[in-house]
Amino acid sequence: MMGVQLTLDKILERAVDLFPERELVTKLPDGSTHRYTYGDAYERICQLAHALDEMGLEEGARVGVVATNHYRHFELYFGPACSARSIHMCNMRLPDHHFVHTIEDAEDEVIFVDPALVEKVEANADELETVKQYVILCEEDELPETDLEPVVAYESLLAGHPTEYEWPDIDEDREYGMCHTSGTTGLPKGVPYTHRAMYLHSIMCGHVDANQVSEGDVALPVVPMFHANGWGIPYAATFAGAKQVFPSVHTDPESLAHLIDDEEVTVSAAVPTIWLEMANYLDENPDVDISNIDRLTVGGSAPPESLIRKYDEEYDAPIIQGWGMTETSPLGTLSTLRTEVEALSPEEQYEYRTMAGFPVPGMQVRIIDDDGEEVPRDGETMGELEVRSPWVTDHYHNRPEENEQAFTDDGYLRTGDIAVRDELGYVDVVDRDKDVIKSGGEWISSVQLENDLIAHEDVAEATVVGVEHERWQERPLAIVVPTADADLVADDLADHLGETFPDWWLPDAYEFIDEIPKTSTGKFDKKRLRDRFDIVLEATDEEEAEL
Amino acid sequence: MMGVQLTLDKILERAVDLFPERELVTKLPDGSTHRYTYGDAYERICQLAHALDEMGLEEGARVGVVATNHYRHFELYFGPACSARSIHMCNMRLPDHHFVHTIEDAEDEVIFVDPALVEKVEANADELETVKQYVILCEEDELPETDLEPVVAYESLLAGHPTEYEWPDIDEDREYGMCHTSGTTGLPKGVPYTHRAMYLHSIMCGHVDANQVSEGDVALPVVPMFHANGWGIPYAATFAGAKQVFPSVHTDPESLAHLIDDEEVTVSAAVPTIWLEMANYLDENPDVDISNIDRLTVGGSAPPESLIRKYDEEYDAPIIQGWGMTETSPLGTLSTLRTEVEALSPEEQYEYRTMAGFPVPGMQVRIIDDDGEEVPRDGETMGELEVRSPWVTDHYHNRPEENEQAFTDDGYLRTGDIAVRDELGYVDVVDRDKDVIKSGGEWISSVQLENDLIAHEDVAEATVVGVEHERWQERPLAIVVPTADADLVADDLADHLGETFPDWWLPDAYEFIDEIPKTSTGKFDKKRLRDRFDIVLEATDEEEAEL
Repeated sequence: MMGVQLTLDKILERAVDLFPERELVTKLPDGSTHRYTYGDAYERICQLAHALDEMGLEEGARVGVVATNHYRHFELYFGPACSARSIHMCNMRLPDHHFVHTIEDAEDEVIFVDPALVEKVEANADELETVKQYVILCEEDELPETDLEPVVAYESLLAGHPTEYEWPDIDEDREYGMCHTSGTTGLPKGVPYTHRAMYLHSIMCGHVDANQVSEGDVALPVVPMFHANGWGIPYAATFAGAKQVFPSVHTDPESLAHLIDDEEVTVSAAVPTIWLEMANYLDENPDVDISNIDRLTVGGSAPPESLIRKYDEEYDAPIIQGWGMTETSPLGTLSTLRTEVEALSPEEQYEYRTMAGFPVPGMQVRIIDDDGEEVPRDGETMGELEVRSPWVTDHYHNRPEENEQAFTDDGYLRTGDIAVRDELGYVDVVDRDKDVIKSGGEWISSVQLENDLIAHEDVAEATVVGVEHERWQERPLAIVVPTADADLVADDLADHLGETFPDWWLPDAYEFIDEIPKTSTGKFDKKRLRDRFDIVLEATDEEEAEL
Repeated sequence: MMGVQLTLDKILERAVDLFPERELVTKLPDGSTHRYTYGDAYERICQLAHALDEMGLEEGARVGVVATNHYRHFELYFGPACSARSIHMCNMRLPDHHFVHTIEDAEDEVIFVDPALVEKVEANADELETVKQYVILCEEDELPETDLEPVVAYESLLAGHPTEYEWPDIDEDREYGMCHTSGTTGLPKGVPYTHRAMYLHSIMCGHVDANQVSEGDVALPVVPMFHANGWGIPYAATFAGAKQVFPSVHTDPESLAHLIDDEEVTVSAAVPTIWLEMANYLDENPDVDISNIDRLTVGGSAPPESLIRKYDEEYDAPIIQGWGMTETSPLGTLSTLRTEVEALSPEEQYEYRTMAGFPVPGMQVRIIDDDGEEVPRDGETMGELEVRSPWVTDHYHNRPEENEQAFTDDGYLRTGDIAVRDELGYVDVVDRDKDVIKSGGEWISSVQLENDLIAHEDVAEATVVGVEHERWQERPLAIVVPTADADLVADDLADHLGETFPDWWLPDAYEFIDEIPKTSTGKFDKKRLRDRFDIVLEATDEEEAEL
């Protein structure tokens, strides 16, 4: 058959060929609205490609983008990629030394940056030795004062270039972009994405058993476009020819609710917090109408069941959880309901809707125990989640050591997530590999214990870590912040947990403290807790006898 | 990213991994029903692969299949392909010399044949020099008497082999199958299909803007599995994990209606005649319920608008037309309704629903005039339809001469179909290249004139061919069979056509005959008509003056 390469120019050209009048709408930082069409965007993407040529950027050169979600960022999703360069999607929320590392690691030659984010780049510019040009994403007369140099306004860069471009023949295995992992366990790691991967990811996102991204949709990616391709939405929506809406800085619940209402958004994606806050806003502002919403994708962390119920009951807007990683482009599983689950009672369906979900078409998934065997599909036995797909990375950039660890001999990515799987094929992620408590031959989910502890009325915060044990290798230690004035003792919590979990899951010890330390991204800092509570639990007399 | 090859074993293994209990149902020739699951089928496909090994079939060897649609044919869709051989889907309806040509051309080493079709093979066996083994698709005790040799029953061939198989690593560009075109203009031409093409075609068939083949569907391919991969349905349905229903010989309206009713079929595909006949059957048998049908795909020829209306109004079963060819795997366009069309009145929508349709995701389409330019998207200007996609062939097997003609320098297939396109991107096929009448610089659709002639109450049959003209190169000649006792003259028909078409479209001459000659497939034999009416129309005096 024809050797048509699966490249991003095909995605873009389909939108322009068949849907030239479809709109791309941006709520600009100043509160005004920018509207244009795929036809308009295409001309500017061509201009951008010419500008990159004029800069002398070679094939494969990376350009960093430090930006919120808006139409110029959309143009940068295609201009470098379709002209055989690569977009490096920079996470400006990283601490400075990580931020600098990502740009050094990617060897970005140009940095495109929002006016409001110039400071972040300026503060680190001395260290950015590969960068030859800064481009600020604004008009000439909007250029902020800056020490960056050389510097040019994006609109001046584009101005005067031809609005057509003859895209080069690109091999589908060429890199079109790179994201870095968030680096919770060390320096961020770069994931190079190929055209083929994102083409396949995009057509899969349109699958009726996956995200169903259709030409009739109006897509609002709230998830930042520097996070794993904005979860693939800008590419998938372009492939489908859907209208897209970008919020730029306006990701507060009020702005988002009005954007959904005004632009008749049908599909959106964000972390659960966004939808939680929006529900609160809508409670207080019943005149705002989000009834156009057809479905909402959440990821990053599991949405509480109460949130899913609320969106079902009050807005008829089903929340669909997705599981994925920077390494997986990102879509791996979705909590869509297969026929057998649709036949269950609503209560039983909610159990499935809070899971990581069902593997999307094209994604191979397995859960492997410590002996390298697949765990039984009983919904209980834990193992490490491993995945394989044309849109899963096969290496980290410049990380030979991690690359040795991260992949199996038969080509699966070890995700580091601990999961279970049921007989219908649904995956539920129960912990991170480094946090799961390996007690004897059995595994205990720290996350499940934490969730149950936090449900106790006298608990303000709680976390569970594994500590060394003479007999069982590891046992759970609960670290609890009681609510003010609470009169809480360990036995209360043991009784509480005992209602849900078997005896051998219950923590061997409880520590009461004033505050749980957090990481820079606001998660419990379990590493510091493990260091602080570096104890060895003794075996009981009975256990001693067995040793 | 991972170099996971897009191969058919992935499609099969996904179904077995996630949907092992889903059923594959066959209505057997004797009227009984065979039911088993993807899990069961997988074991037999593994046995089949072992049997092919035992026969000594090398990589790339082709096996011919001469069969109706049933579960053993389904097994043959995967066994040879996943073990790096190729299934040659043989069209037993071809005349003998074409049938023999296809098997010689494919160099089939084994022929798998239904008991009821053994005669067709026997009649030609002397000429099938590449065939080393015949396998009859039945149990040992069902073997018919036959002169074929060596011969074995399919069930005996499978028996005793292991029910697991380690599939080889297959390059996605390897051929998994071959179909031949129907050869209306010469010897059938072989189209070799690659794993990559059918993997992509299958995931596209699940796209929400294409066929939406879902895990929740029950798919009934009525279209023969030897016609362009059964229009891709058995592969797409397996990829999705859908239940499948195979009718074997029972493609009469009564059997199909009951099969749809009994097995709760949601999606089916066939030529328009099938649905026309079924509507007649359902009119007379209102107790048969086809309300499970969600949509019906038709192809091969355009469905009359009245048929689409009837299925909408009486069965709530929308008919969606598709355009494709053996060369295109086959799906190219579908008459799905994009948002702008959904906003139109029902009457206007019907105009779109009778068109060839909208390009599916991944299919590049253009319409080119005699000067090699794209025609305006005005819904009127005709040109040749050209297509490009990873699932469109880039060559015919063993046909260097046709390969020179059939493809453009920039990699499009010249389809030989004459089409128009409107501003929304919808394609309508108005004629075949060899039948369109090229009058001066303008083109006249023979098909549109025919359809209007046949709508005249005194016309039983009508066709239009181009004949040579001194001034205009070609002009239309209408050939008409009047109804019995009709008193029809040329002026009546000219007046009738004049209500719809401009003057320059009207035929220059009308011939009244008793019967229009047909080809072996029942189509008007325009070649014979052109030979019979081999006339040269003279220029009028006025035209003469211009010459």
